[in-house]
Amino acid sequence: MAEAEKEKLTIVVFSGELDKALAAFIIATTGASMGMDVSMFFTFWGLNILKKNEGPAGGKGLMKKMLNWMNRGGTRRLKLTHFHMFGLGTAMMKKFMKENHVPSLDEFIKMAKDMGVKMIPCSTTCSVMGIGEGAFREEVGSLAGAAFFLNEARQSKVTLFI
Amino acid sequence: MAEAEKEKLTIVVFSGELDKALAAFIIATTGASMGMDVSMFFTFWGLNILKKNEGPAGGKGLMKKMLNWMNRGGTRRLKLTHFHMFGLGTAMMKKFMKENHVPSLDEFIKMAKDMGVKMIPCSTTCSVMGIGEGAFREEVGSLAGAAFFLNEARQSKVTLFI
Amino acid sequence: MAEAEKEKLTIVVFSGELDKALAAFIIATTGASMGMDVSMFFTFWGLNILKKNEGPAGGKGLMKKMLNWMNRGGTRRLKLTHFHMFGLGTAMMKKFMKENHVPSLDEFIKMAKDMGVKMIPCSTTCSVMGIGEGAFREEVGSLAGAAFFLNEARQSKVTLFI
Repeated sequence: MAEAEKEKLTIVVFSGELDKALAAFIIATTGASMGMDVSMFFTFWGLNILKKNEGPAGGKGLMKKMLNWMNRGGTRRLKLTHFHMFGLGTAMMKKFMKENHVPSLDEFIKMAKDMGVKMIPCSTTCSVMGIGEGAFREEVGSLAGAAFFLNEARQSKVTLFI
Repeated sequence: MAEAEKEKLTIVVFSGELDKALAAFIIATTGASMGMDVSMFFTFWGLNILKKNEGPAGGKGLMKKMLNWMNRGGTRRLKLTHFHMFGLGTAMMKKFMKENHVPSLDEFIKMAKDMGVKMIPCSTTCSVMGIGEGAFREEVGSLAGAAFFLNEARQSKVTLFI
Repeated sequence: MAEAEKEKLTIVVFSGELDKALAAFIIATTGASMGMDVSMFFTFWGLNILKKNEGPAGGKGLMKKMLNWMNRGGTRRLKLTHFHMFGLGTAMMKKFMKENHVPSLDEFIKMAKDMGVKMIPCSTTCSVMGIGEGAFREEVGSLAGAAFFLNEARQSKVTLFI
C-alpha cells in the first residue's frame, strides 16, 4: 500500500506523566504495527518525555533556566499520575512492566522511531517555555505548530488528546 | 438498521476519577440512546471504575497485593479530580447529582450494559498491575489489547481519550 | 465554501487548568483560521474557563453557594496543572507568553468568538453544580447537552477531549 493510502493516527501528547506517556506509545507503536501512518505531537508537559536524560537543562535567561531546571524532563524523571510515592510507586510500576515483558519508555521511543512514527515537538510551547531543539533526544523530528497538527488530524481515522 | 451499519463511538477511559468516569458514561449512554454502537476501553487507573466494591483487593505476590490494596478501586471509592476534601466534596457532588435526577455511576454502568455498551478492560495493563478478571464487576466484558481498540477506533465516527 | 460544507472540529473541554484551556483555544482558533467550523463544549471544571472574572460566584442554596465560591473560576483564577507554586509559576508562564506574543486566555476567548467558534456550556453539569447562565461571560453561547455534542462530533473530522 502506498504511503498516501495508509490510514493515519494522530496523537497529541499534552501530559508528561510516565503512565500517560506509556499509553501514548503503546497506542502509537500498535498503530504502526497495524500499518497505520502515526504522528505524535508533543506540547506543554508532554515535551518532557522527549528531553534528553543527560546534559544541561537548557533555557535562555535566568527565569527560563530556573523553569527548565525544575521542569527538567527526560524519560527517567517522569512520575506516575498517582502513587509516585517519592519514587517507590514509579519504580514498582517499572519493575512490573519488566516482569511482564512490556518495553520501557526508552525502548518504546526507539521502537516508535524504527517503525516510522513521527515525534514532533510543538513550536509554540517550545518558544514560550524557552526549550531549544538541542534539548531533545535524537529520535525527535522537526518542530511544527498547531496548523500542521490539525492538517494531519483532519486526514486521520483516529485522533487522540492524551 | 443492521449492527454493521451503526455508527461507532469508542472511548478510552484512562483516568479513574469519579468526574471523568461520569463524563465517560454520560457520553457512552447518550451515544447508545442515539443508536450508536459504543465500546469503552478501560486502561491504567480507569480499570478502578470497573472493580467490584466488595471482596478482596486481589493481586498475586506481596508487592502486587500491596498495589491492589492501595489502588483498591470500585465505584464507591473514586474521588473527584478537585475538591475531594477528605470525601466531603465528593459526597456533595453525589448529593447534587441525586437532586438533579442524574444517575449515580453504579446506575450508569448498569444502564450502559443494558443498552449494549461494551466495557473492555485492557489486557496489558491488567497483566502489569496484576489484576485478574475476577476483580471486575459482572457488567464487564472480556479483556482485549491495544490492537483491538485501534481496530474499533479506526471504524468509529468519534473516538475519545478520557 | 458554504457553511454546510465546512469541515468540523469539536472539542470537549473538561479540565479547568490554564495550560489545558490554552491548548484548547490554540487548537480551536487555529482550526477556525484554517476555515474549519469549530464547536467547544465545556463541562465540569472546564466551565470555570467561561465564568466572569467579576461579580458574585453564584449558586442557589447554601451548599451550592459554597461550592461556587470555592470553585470560583474566571480566566484570572485558573492555575497551571504543575508548578502553580502559589501563583508564581502561573505568573511566570503568563509573562513568557506575553514575551513570545502569544495571546492571553482572555484574548483567545475574544478571538475565538470573533472567528465564529461556538462556546457551549454543558447543561447537565451546570444544573448539577448550580451554575446559572448569568455566571458566564458574554462570548458564551446557549447551554446544550451530551446529545447535541455527540451530534456535532459524529459529523466532525476531528474530535478532542481535553
